[in-house]
Amino acid sequence: MANNFNIEKLFSADKLAVARAISSVENQDRASLELLNQIHHKLGKAYRVGITGPPGAGKSTLVSKLAKELNEKGKKVGIIAVDPTSPFTGGALLGDRVRMMELSPRDGIFIRSMATRGSLGGLSKTSQQAADVLDAAGFDYVLLETVGVGQSELDVVEAADTTIVVLTPESGDSVQAMKAGLMEIADFFVLNKADRPGVDQSYNAISTILSISIGSRQGESPTETFEQISGHHHEMETEQSGQPMGSFGQDPSRWAPFIVKTVASENRGIDEVIKGIERHHDYLLKTNKLFTKRKERTRKIIFEIVEENLHKKFWTKERLAKLDDKLELVLTNKLSAIQLAEELTRE
Amino acid sequence: MANNFNIEKLFSADKLAVARAISSVENQDRASLELLNQIHHKLGKAYRVGITGPPGAGKSTLVSKLAKELNEKGKKVGIIAVDPTSPFTGGALLGDRVRMMELSPRDGIFIRSMATRGSLGGLSKTSQQAADVLDAAGFDYVLLETVGVGQSELDVVEAADTTIVVLTPESGDSVQAMKAGLMEIADFFVLNKADRPGVDQSYNAISTILSISIGSRQGESPTETFEQISGHHHEMETEQSGQPMGSFGQDPSRWAPFIVKTVASENRGIDEVIKGIERHHDYLLKTNKLFTKRKERTRKIIFEIVEENLHKKFWTKERLAKLDDKLELVLTNKLSAIQLAEELTRE
Repeated sequence: MANNFNIEKLFSADKLAVARAISSVENQDRASLELLNQIHHKLGKAYRVGITGPPGAGKSTLVSKLAKELNEKGKKVGIIAVDPTSPFTGGALLGDRVRMMELSPRDGIFIRSMATRGSLGGLSKTSQQAADVLDAAGFDYVLLETVGVGQSELDVVEAADTTIVVLTPESGDSVQAMKAGLMEIADFFVLNKADRPGVDQSYNAISTILSISIGSRQGESPTETFEQISGHHHEMETEQSGQPMGSFGQDPSRWAPFIVKTVASENRGIDEVIKGIERHHDYLLKTNKLFTKRKERTRKIIFEIVEENLHKKFWTKERLAKLDDKLELVLTNKLSAIQLAEELTRE
Repeated sequence: MANNFNIEKLFSADKLAVARAISSVENQDRASLELLNQIHHKLGKAYRVGITGPPGAGKSTLVSKLAKELNEKGKKVGIIAVDPTSPFTGGALLGDRVRMMELSPRDGIFIRSMATRGSLGGLSKTSQQAADVLDAAGFDYVLLETVGVGQSELDVVEAADTTIVVLTPESGDSVQAMKAGLMEIADFFVLNKADRPGVDQSYNAISTILSISIGSRQGESPTETFEQISGHHHEMETEQSGQPMGSFGQDPSRWAPFIVKTVASENRGIDEVIKGIERHHDYLLKTNKLFTKRKERTRKIIFEIVEENLHKKFWTKERLAKLDDKLELVLTNKLSAIQLAEELTRE
């Protein structure tokens, strides 16, 4: 048993045990290594969904509603809300308090905020390890939520099994999303606040961008079909226009991203989002891509841990002293930073 | 001479040579190492200013006006605009086009955008190396601009000699800025769009937060004084209330952040921002903190280069093959990621 953890309590999803374990992972302390070594045999059962989008898109509300809905279907749901470094991203702190109050009485829903500022180790690694804790604790779904700003923040959601990008009709988000390459990380889109003006234009804009950019999606062939889940714009009913959602089109090995319209605050469209997740899950299973995706995620984490180990091993007191000695030479232009780095690593 | 560079042209600030050199640095190609080794003896003359803030704060406009004003004072100015990964941060791409058209005819102003998405190596390292190129090319000022979102983006501006945080009256930015720890990275604040409603409240809010949080600034003692540059709110005249800007107060080794009000789009307050930069520069020189700051920056860059070297050295074909071999064991829960990483590094 790890020093500070009651591993049996963790495995039975005891909230305090889970919270403690995640804190340990967040601090990347020694006990967290022990813990992660003790839970690895339990991993792989939880399905991880990454949710991102611009500030104010209603991600928190959507995540809460998703969690509730999944919970009502008998699923245990863990939420990891990664608070971005920057504040200019829409009151995450306050939002979380409100959510926690709303969600905490329910069994089977666990919510945790992680701050990115000053986070030790890569944010993506740390958040996935926190997801590992939830996975081992028996949660069926882990929802990883973060605002779509900053490379490290996007890495968090990209590492999930399914990645959802949330946009709104108002903000001209769709064109901005294209610029940023968010089209590439989205397995599907949620067009939230779909009761607001401009929803048709937004829907069409995303559709158009998708049909253009989908041809260049990495490792995937071009396709002309993609599906919309809800047909009539303001009624949110599911009209599938004769084709299955997330259509496999002619080639079942291709995934075609689609758009789901929601009004999360009124609980509208949530079921369609869950169907979208399930559809993508099925697709990953059928094409054996879930395994590939998880392999890639694990590989990245191992790269990161190796890097940390090498760092710790390398920076002995002697080497740090030598660096400090010679740093003056760099600052007085007698040596370049690259030369000093090479001198240090050559030994 | 490096393979692809005419180093003499670079030293004479030839725009094409500078642009090529920065591209090489951005790609972190082999030639860039050679180049950086060849320019190191020229470094340290440029003064680096980091400018950050929320989307829509008018950073681009401010930076353009600063560059023009400095240029009119006979200074050469290089601008590195780091485009964030995410798009939800206010039309950087378009903004740059406009700016480039406005600025490019001027001699002595060079502007370059760097994308964060898919950037090789650390963003902070790469942008500082691009600043090195401008430094070696004889630019007096390098302005590093990025939106205040994401850890890696903030690292960019924190590595500068002087860091400016730009806020606006409208957005309730000040409270958000406090939450994010932006108070800690700002050497001073620019309250832009100061002709808009709410400027007094914003000014007071920032002031209050500063007077509270300044006590906890890392490595600095508490102080109760901080200066405002412009007195009357809507007139932008410089009223110094009998104390020097960026007051040293009782203790000249303490820096007290202040607030400068601007309407960048109308060129108002730009001179005060330049005075603020000069004041902070003086302070760093007098207290010998400029050297300390640059030492810290260089140290971080060396750490990064060492890390990269170790990575390259470590990941031989054999080790990569072994990783791929054993990855299956991790995915089938027979081994933890940490155990595999340790096994690899132990050898």
